[in-house]
Amino acid sequence: MSQSKGTVVLAYSGGLDTSCILVWLKEQGYDVIAYLANIGQDEDFEAARKKAESLGAKKVFIEDLCKEFVEEFIWPSVQANAIYENRYLLGTSIARPCIARGQVEIAKREGAQYVSHGATGKGNDQIRFELTCYALYPEVKIIAPWRMPEFYTRFQGRNDLMEYAQKHGIPVPVTPKSPWSMDANLMHISYESGILENPKTHAPPGIFQMSKDPEVSPDTPDVLEIEFSKGVPVKVINVKEGKSVDSPLEMFQYLNTIGGSHGVGRIDIVENRFIGMKSRGIYETPGGTILYHAHMDIETFTMDREVRKIKQGLSVQFSEQLYNGFWYSPECEFVRCCIATSQESVEGKVQLSVFKGQVYILGRESPKSLYNEELVSMNVQGDYDPCDASGFIKINSLRLKEYHRLQSKAGKPQ
Amino acid sequence: MSQSKGTVVLAYSGGLDTSCILVWLKEQGYDVIAYLANIGQDEDFEAARKKAESLGAKKVFIEDLCKEFVEEFIWPSVQANAIYENRYLLGTSIARPCIARGQVEIAKREGAQYVSHGATGKGNDQIRFELTCYALYPEVKIIAPWRMPEFYTRFQGRNDLMEYAQKHGIPVPVTPKSPWSMDANLMHISYESGILENPKTHAPPGIFQMSKDPEVSPDTPDVLEIEFSKGVPVKVINVKEGKSVDSPLEMFQYLNTIGGSHGVGRIDIVENRFIGMKSRGIYETPGGTILYHAHMDIETFTMDREVRKIKQGLSVQFSEQLYNGFWYSPECEFVRCCIATSQESVEGKVQLSVFKGQVYILGRESPKSLYNEELVSMNVQGDYDPCDASGFIKINSLRLKEYHRLQSKAGKPQ
Amino acid sequence: MSQSKGTVVLAYSGGLDTSCILVWLKEQGYDVIAYLANIGQDEDFEAARKKAESLGAKKVFIEDLCKEFVEEFIWPSVQANAIYENRYLLGTSIARPCIARGQVEIAKREGAQYVSHGATGKGNDQIRFELTCYALYPEVKIIAPWRMPEFYTRFQGRNDLMEYAQKHGIPVPVTPKSPWSMDANLMHISYESGILENPKTHAPPGIFQMSKDPEVSPDTPDVLEIEFSKGVPVKVINVKEGKSVDSPLEMFQYLNTIGGSHGVGRIDIVENRFIGMKSRGIYETPGGTILYHAHMDIETFTMDREVRKIKQGLSVQFSEQLYNGFWYSPECEFVRCCIATSQESVEGKVQLSVFKGQVYILGRESPKSLYNEELVSMNVQGDYDPCDASGFIKINSLRLKEYHRLQSKAGKPQ
Amino acid sequence: MSQSKGTVVLAYSGGLDTSCILVWLKEQGYDVIAYLANIGQDEDFEAARKKAESLGAKKVFIEDLCKEFVEEFIWPSVQANAIYENRYLLGTSIARPCIARGQVEIAKREGAQYVSHGATGKGNDQIRFELTCYALYPEVKIIAPWRMPEFYTRFQGRNDLMEYAQKHGIPVPVTPKSPWSMDANLMHISYESGILENPKTHAPPGIFQMSKDPEVSPDTPDVLEIEFSKGVPVKVINVKEGKSVDSPLEMFQYLNTIGGSHGVGRIDIVENRFIGMKSRGIYETPGGTILYHAHMDIETFTMDREVRKIKQGLSVQFSEQLYNGFWYSPECEFVRCCIATSQESVEGKVQLSVFKGQVYILGRESPKSLYNEELVSMNVQGDYDPCDASGFIKINSLRLKEYHRLQSKAGKPQ
Repeated sequence: MSQSKGTVVLAYSGGLDTSCILVWLKEQGYDVIAYLANIGQDEDFEAARKKAESLGAKKVFIEDLCKEFVEEFIWPSVQANAIYENRYLLGTSIARPCIARGQVEIAKREGAQYVSHGATGKGNDQIRFELTCYALYPEVKIIAPWRMPEFYTRFQGRNDLMEYAQKHGIPVPVTPKSPWSMDANLMHISYESGILENPKTHAPPGIFQMSKDPEVSPDTPDVLEIEFSKGVPVKVINVKEGKSVDSPLEMFQYLNTIGGSHGVGRIDIVENRFIGMKSRGIYETPGGTILYHAHMDIETFTMDREVRKIKQGLSVQFSEQLYNGFWYSPECEFVRCCIATSQESVEGKVQLSVFKGQVYILGRESPKSLYNEELVSMNVQGDYDPCDASGFIKINSLRLKEYHRLQSKAGKPQ
Repeated sequence: MSQSKGTVVLAYSGGLDTSCILVWLKEQGYDVIAYLANIGQDEDFEAARKKAESLGAKKVFIEDLCKEFVEEFIWPSVQANAIYENRYLLGTSIARPCIARGQVEIAKREGAQYVSHGATGKGNDQIRFELTCYALYPEVKIIAPWRMPEFYTRFQGRNDLMEYAQKHGIPVPVTPKSPWSMDANLMHISYESGILENPKTHAPPGIFQMSKDPEVSPDTPDVLEIEFSKGVPVKVINVKEGKSVDSPLEMFQYLNTIGGSHGVGRIDIVENRFIGMKSRGIYETPGGTILYHAHMDIETFTMDREVRKIKQGLSVQFSEQLYNGFWYSPECEFVRCCIATSQESVEGKVQLSVFKGQVYILGRESPKSLYNEELVSMNVQGDYDPCDASGFIKINSLRLKEYHRLQSKAGKPQ
Repeated sequence: MSQSKGTVVLAYSGGLDTSCILVWLKEQGYDVIAYLANIGQDEDFEAARKKAESLGAKKVFIEDLCKEFVEEFIWPSVQANAIYENRYLLGTSIARPCIARGQVEIAKREGAQYVSHGATGKGNDQIRFELTCYALYPEVKIIAPWRMPEFYTRFQGRNDLMEYAQKHGIPVPVTPKSPWSMDANLMHISYESGILENPKTHAPPGIFQMSKDPEVSPDTPDVLEIEFSKGVPVKVINVKEGKSVDSPLEMFQYLNTIGGSHGVGRIDIVENRFIGMKSRGIYETPGGTILYHAHMDIETFTMDREVRKIKQGLSVQFSEQLYNGFWYSPECEFVRCCIATSQESVEGKVQLSVFKGQVYILGRESPKSLYNEELVSMNVQGDYDPCDASGFIKINSLRLKEYHRLQSKAGKPQ
Repeated sequence: MSQSKGTVVLAYSGGLDTSCILVWLKEQGYDVIAYLANIGQDEDFEAARKKAESLGAKKVFIEDLCKEFVEEFIWPSVQANAIYENRYLLGTSIARPCIARGQVEIAKREGAQYVSHGATGKGNDQIRFELTCYALYPEVKIIAPWRMPEFYTRFQGRNDLMEYAQKHGIPVPVTPKSPWSMDANLMHISYESGILENPKTHAPPGIFQMSKDPEVSPDTPDVLEIEFSKGVPVKVINVKEGKSVDSPLEMFQYLNTIGGSHGVGRIDIVENRFIGMKSRGIYETPGGTILYHAHMDIETFTMDREVRKIKQGLSVQFSEQLYNGFWYSPECEFVRCCIATSQESVEGKVQLSVFKGQVYILGRESPKSLYNEELVSMNVQGDYDPCDASGFIKINSLRLKEYHRLQSKAGKPQ
């Protein structure tokens, strides 16, 4: 028996692609450790374990990362109001560093020099996986079969994979593949490629799995109160039912349940990938969408205007870093640190209703708000002297008058 | 009879406040010209004209600005994706320079040295009005009664105004005032102050006037196709009904109708005023909300990623300028010019459905898109060599590895 | 004897203006406490004390703030590379919050409800003083005589002040006033107004007081080594002379001495004031200029590229906050905190020469640099695979090719 | 004789490296067209032509691009105040798209499918060359020998090149190579690598070729007046000598002469390359440095404060695009267009003196300045009411007071 080329930790999903990759890697002479991260996707993890073992994996690690995914990755994104290109809540982007960190930990622990994954060569995920691996384990070697000519010329379509599977005793899916691909985790499900590649084609009805169609969702809203401390939720109450949850994972799951039942968080967008292509993606992010709106509200309520403006600038940068795969980078560490600082006083309760795909903010309160009801009141003069506003306006008009003077001199029409 | 102190053009609304101001200005010795801009609010303009005349206005001008409001003010905001603090579509902010420009034109034409308005001393509108006036007519003198001690100490509440009105033959409203104030135009209605000043209090059901409550709105969506050219809509088609409109004003009104019938565009926010207070505002912007989503979609579809990023940065600045009243400023002129440049290729059609308070993008097409279906396809290799991505990722990881090297040297935990 | 209107703490300079203000305030019925901050200006502080006492000040406080000025105000500005409008090192702006903080502390301690200053009504300093006072002592009342008609109509020119001084026993300057005004502190001297108001007029030779004219400065350079830790200097060595200093105040003074002797840090600019005017200012900032260059160098040497970019964006905002008087604001606190975070690894030594008005960086070293001599070397391949660059470039060209495809389709000339 | 693989246009410098590449390309079976751009470097172009011909180039094109380099590349950079990482004036970066554009034009005209260059695999220039080529000629194939294993393993050092040269009749340089590399054009000379790779090592005396050592430069300044229109120089006058030049190329050359004679524009920096390394570079940019200062001055003098702020933000982005090689990109086109718009009123004259490595602004004047001498004057009240400043300051303090209120409530020390 020939000597092993070394050990590779493969990000294994249990599906056809990574099962073939597992066998192919063995064929190439590697020992393969299968690694499957549970970040909330709907999966039969034990079946996957058995499958990997049966395909010859030296070891199989199935790690439940749900809790750390919420606390270490989703929470900072909530604090940041992270959103890519004004619309995408980054559900896939944020999961990748969490998964890859787990993979690298196993590789280091098990003395594996290689990691491998089944991400394609045109997407963002390859970058997110690999930048995390290189950042945390710079000496690692990465095997990305879908970028290796010897692999991708051999497997040019699904049929080639099916054939290979049959030949190598890899269980073949019995149900036909949906005409698009999807990626699921606790935060969202994304749908792309296949028939969705035509950006004009409407998504087929019934594509969504986390959220109910608003046309058939309940006819009465749910009203929630979400309490925040330091910019993250600490309690979620269903006002009518009186139900209350307060651990991070449970809160997020509950928000998914409520949001999902009302069809919240569905978008259909064209986005710009890091590698420079435009791609069409359909996403559903029920709990994340509720939190996005609720956090935005409590933050604007409690944070100084100018701090907020600077913080929003940082958020745009954070969102791009996240999307492009730079969670573990000096700049993202720096920005996360700045954003965390900004959240010190983001504290209070937001009431909102969830109904037919929408989140409606109803009211908010905070012990730390800069909102001053007396100051802003139309009925109370308070401490405020309206004459000051005249001076304020006149000073602000100085530049405009000078500009007008110059334009007039130049004979420009006003 | 004593000599006139001069002529003042008063922004007159027909309501109690500005009617009292009209009479009060006369009392102070001014000739008063009443000016009422029709920017789409629901108003009996002829009744207002008669009222102003009966109160002693020397002249009354009622100007229909709807068309220019849409074409010169709303359209550039659509191009910009203008939104203040991530949520407010600027329906009031954008109307002020349009109204004030009309007022200044009359003042200049009629040889009036003064303009006056009924905006309060704590709000943004006084600033938006006056900066426009100072910018376009630098020599103008502004009379802002609500900032003048002789006025605001005399009229400390509504009762004082009522009493004054009765004494001076000013018709007094017969219906009781709603416990909040509102401001309406073609683009939106805003609600604030009164019982809404407590940010925790939910808005009363039935407050909204432009949009139906989603709980009772139609149970089937309307599907629209909006066609854009240079970043502004040029045609709106109701796909099921086949109805089609294509003049700017009609399109905007039609979008208001459709959006309103489905309860689109309602928000409840706390925002940061230019003068430094936080205030609570409730807004409904049906047509503007549809256009915001549709334009965002066609823009991302057609515009280069990096251009988009820079343009979004400019939009944030534009939105703040607009909110703060600087439409007529060198910086806003500059930014509008840059944004217009960016819209050259923003062309194509967006299909969307409007349902129960939500706008769902369904698909889009464009003759000028940078979207390349073949390039992005999972099934077609196309021109793209996946090996390039390996180099791309490795070069991007260089900085991260160096950073890791240094952190390790410093003994920092990874 | 009539009752006092209360106690006012006056920022007293010992000069004609604030001496007249002192007497005038007493005349108005206030008890006056004179406060004179020593922030490194060339002044006979004891003479000023006697003068204030002789003019009837109830108490006189002369506070030596030099140390805290360097450590709490100049150092954070060095960390930030603070510079306004790309040229002005903010020597006056940075001194104001330091001075006003001291004034407020005395006012609180002495139970004074009022503070007063001699800053003019067109400048930035009034804003910087007062925003600091309002931020740290919100109930304070500010008396700004140069903005009070009863004062400024009485004192319309220097002659009025002279006359008043003679009448009230205020010692009158024996030397004629220079035809411009100046403001000095440890960090810089500024010159403005008078004959300098014509922006075309060259500054007269001999105007500068901290720095020698480069035409007569030494013909040989001084070579310094400045050691930084966490972004602030911790040691300055004169390489040739072997002299070494390491306390903040001494270091800064020494850099002033060396920089001044070589004519470093002179600029002549037109800047934009917060109130919206353009004004012409001439500044000399010898030590600050050396530190600006040295810190910029060690920072770029040690800080990650992307962190640096974000941090520079924050610096622009910090500089504007500082210039506009918002040192004590939530946003400036926030930004200072972010910038301090960025400086953790800004450590090492910079060698530079100072000669004839210039600072030349000669070399640098650091135990924490991200610079990797082997990686960058042209002679050593190192870990780096040049083929990766091909992929990097090709992926970066994707967008450009798509854009070209579209332009060609549109028939645009290439 | 075997068939040609096709024609390649090689960016030829006349030096050892590209001479070897020329021969090697022929050896590989290509027809080679040598292309040498004259962008102002000190070179015997006719000797280079003969050398290329003697080495077997099918054709040789020597293009004089000096004029277009100044007008189309340097001028927009002057308008932008382009500077990378606050220090580097981008002399190399800006030349690359100009050179590569010429190369692509020849390739298209001559029907060549290939272009080639001698840039190394670790630098920025490969990217700048190739992105330009891909942008303007997307189908082009690029041969970058220093990234091809078959080339760089064969030529591992200078000795291998020398040996190859001798074997193939390539003239070998008789003078020993300097222990660093340099790159020269009309705008600057850069020095890097070799002994300069140690960032602590001082540059050897005498390294600079465009500028005189300030220690031996003239003891009296030259005084220049530079006149700008639309942000670019239109006339340069030597005030003492009365000499005047006004064509773009001549002006730039004259500024190089004057700046160079006084040792202006020398810097020694560590910069961040696009590929993620830090590298040390030494640059001299005499004329560009003078223009940078002069343009900054006239721009700040004539441009509105807020326009300037936005424009400076765009400049930072422009500079990064330029440095990274994206001159021919949609985003750089967009930004150049915005910046050009901003320069409409940047008009007037700047007087400055050049002396011992420094540029001193002396004064400026403009028919289009927003500077208003009367408004800013300390002696003239003008139109300005100082009382307005009180209101302005008080309104600006509102936020600060609210923040203080909250901090006090939270028991934070002030």
